[in-house]
Amino acid sequence: MGHSQENNTNAGILNRYQKTISVSLKQNMPNENSEVYKLLSYSMGWIDINGNKKNNNLGKALRPSLCLFACESLSGSIGPSIPAAVAIELIHKFSLIHDDIQDKDEFRYNQATLWTIWGVPKALIAGNVLRIIADQCLEKLVANGTEIDRTLFVIEILTQSYLEMIEGQYLDIYYEGSPGISIEEYMNMIKNKTGALIKSSLQIGAVIGTQNIDIINAFSECGSSIGYLFQIRDDILGVWGESKNTGKPVGSDIKMKKNSFPICYAISNAKNKTKKFLIDKYSKKSITNNDVIEILDVLESLKIKKHAEDITDYHAERAIKALKQKNIPCSTIKEIENLVDFLSTRNH
Amino acid sequence: MGHSQENNTNAGILNRYQKTISVSLKQNMPNENSEVYKLLSYSMGWIDINGNKKNNNLGKALRPSLCLFACESLSGSIGPSIPAAVAIELIHKFSLIHDDIQDKDEFRYNQATLWTIWGVPKALIAGNVLRIIADQCLEKLVANGTEIDRTLFVIEILTQSYLEMIEGQYLDIYYEGSPGISIEEYMNMIKNKTGALIKSSLQIGAVIGTQNIDIINAFSECGSSIGYLFQIRDDILGVWGESKNTGKPVGSDIKMKKNSFPICYAISNAKNKTKKFLIDKYSKKSITNNDVIEILDVLESLKIKKHAEDITDYHAERAIKALKQKNIPCSTIKEIENLVDFLSTRNH
Repeated sequence: MGHSQENNTNAGILNRYQKTISVSLKQNMPNENSEVYKLLSYSMGWIDINGNKKNNNLGKALRPSLCLFACESLSGSIGPSIPAAVAIELIHKFSLIHDDIQDKDEFRYNQATLWTIWGVPKALIAGNVLRIIADQCLEKLVANGTEIDRTLFVIEILTQSYLEMIEGQYLDIYYEGSPGISIEEYMNMIKNKTGALIKSSLQIGAVIGTQNIDIINAFSECGSSIGYLFQIRDDILGVWGESKNTGKPVGSDIKMKKNSFPICYAISNAKNKTKKFLIDKYSKKSITNNDVIEILDVLESLKIKKHAEDITDYHAERAIKALKQKNIPCSTIKEIENLVDFLSTRNH
Repeated sequence: MGHSQENNTNAGILNRYQKTISVSLKQNMPNENSEVYKLLSYSMGWIDINGNKKNNNLGKALRPSLCLFACESLSGSIGPSIPAAVAIELIHKFSLIHDDIQDKDEFRYNQATLWTIWGVPKALIAGNVLRIIADQCLEKLVANGTEIDRTLFVIEILTQSYLEMIEGQYLDIYYEGSPGISIEEYMNMIKNKTGALIKSSLQIGAVIGTQNIDIINAFSECGSSIGYLFQIRDDILGVWGESKNTGKPVGSDIKMKKNSFPICYAISNAKNKTKKFLIDKYSKKSITNNDVIEILDVLESLKIKKHAEDITDYHAERAIKALKQKNIPCSTIKEIENLVDFLSTRNH
């Protein structure tokens, strides 16, 4: 996968649909004058805090891109899946608004988070509004040409994956302050928290693009693997990412005592004395900069970064392998290869 | 409507479906072991804080009762509408969990609220989980015998009314600290915050029970009026309710500077000096017990309680009138009469 060479250009899939996604998101946002829609436009990066227009699209739009890609690969057109792609992105953005409240995060995408500006009550409600706008987008699938029963199936898939996502977020908070959750607990948590929506993005695009259940399952399985590698790469960056790329200092996830892959893997695999050392550090009320340095040394001696990269590679291979079956064109597989290569090696 | 005689027995509709609703709510709650479901069972009144079983059903279950009633009146059976009734009640309960976080309310139904026990992050997520369980209930309509297109229509109605509810909650918070919102602003706020879900409860029951669009609209209009009278009665109780019934001291909504009907109506209708007096009081950082007494005196001199009761009576009449058309049986209208009489005169 070439972890030594850094790859900073976006994969084709992530570039190709940016414009469509950006335009569609705006078209689907109600054009209302009330304050809550100002908060939402701000959270999408369309206006600044004073209401002046900006033209930033915040984030990679990974999930909607996956949805459009699956549909286009299977039906030759992205059109039918646009309402679903928009719904998925809005649900993702909704979850970020509530996440920031839960984690008391003050910045995201280099801008102040909603709750820091407008307070928790308004931010909480704005998140709920965004979630409903997402639902209403999904309901537009019918007017957009998808059969009613298939639309209902898409709604069911998204509801279920959304439930899994929220359950994963709950686990994340539940585990906070428990030093050294097992690697199994960690994998289960990220499967839900991050994996569920990424998986359903490909699955939903496939459901709209084909009736072939084997192909739908293949995309779904591919998405499941992408979810793992995406989150584990995120966790790698949270520990070893350079601040010029991530905007955070090296070791920032450790400093915040996050139950991220490197720590869970290290604690699960370290021998007695080292294991105790790590658990003791993570049991402290707060972790000092010196603790971070010591923990980073331990992670290096255990070659944790290499292990983490091996596991992202493993899931990258699984993602590609899932699609290698008849009826899925080579060009589609090639594009997923590019995507997982980018996601596994990205620096931000 | 007999405001002088107090009527404390529940109306027939509210008694009749209690058992069914209670059983169905429990059946539709996932039987999972993870902590978040413990929070939900607690919020429903099924377990205490230690996880011991209780058998309290919290609240009147007004909304699901309306849904079942409409369906039964029109189709002769409540069966087809049960999944929708459960979904509606869960959405209501979800909104209460988030409301309590927003308003920092520490008690509801005489028990400590979720966020006070488990903290804001977990309570927020638990609310989101409940909302999804509601969605999943709604999706069960198909397996329960409702046609797919009708199910999708029900989903659309509930999504829309839910959006209106959240927009109303937002307005409520937006207006906080603005002394003297106009009566029009107040009516618009409660139409959304309280009315939307009550209206859609009857509407959805009707959609499941009949295909006759005139009848569906009649139930919808009836629900709209019930929403107004329900909230205005709530506001009357928030100012003049006796603490033995409401659990709160007389004048409690004034003390909390709520933009409730009595105050909005008084400020909208008072003459210069009195208007200024009320606005000045509501502009204070906090309202003393003595302020409350003075404000209550002003409300009495303006006969606000009588005006408020007249307006609930007006909406009660509208609710009944909406149903008075061919194809709606007299017995149905009689039951709605009993219900609105109860709701307009209830003491808690």
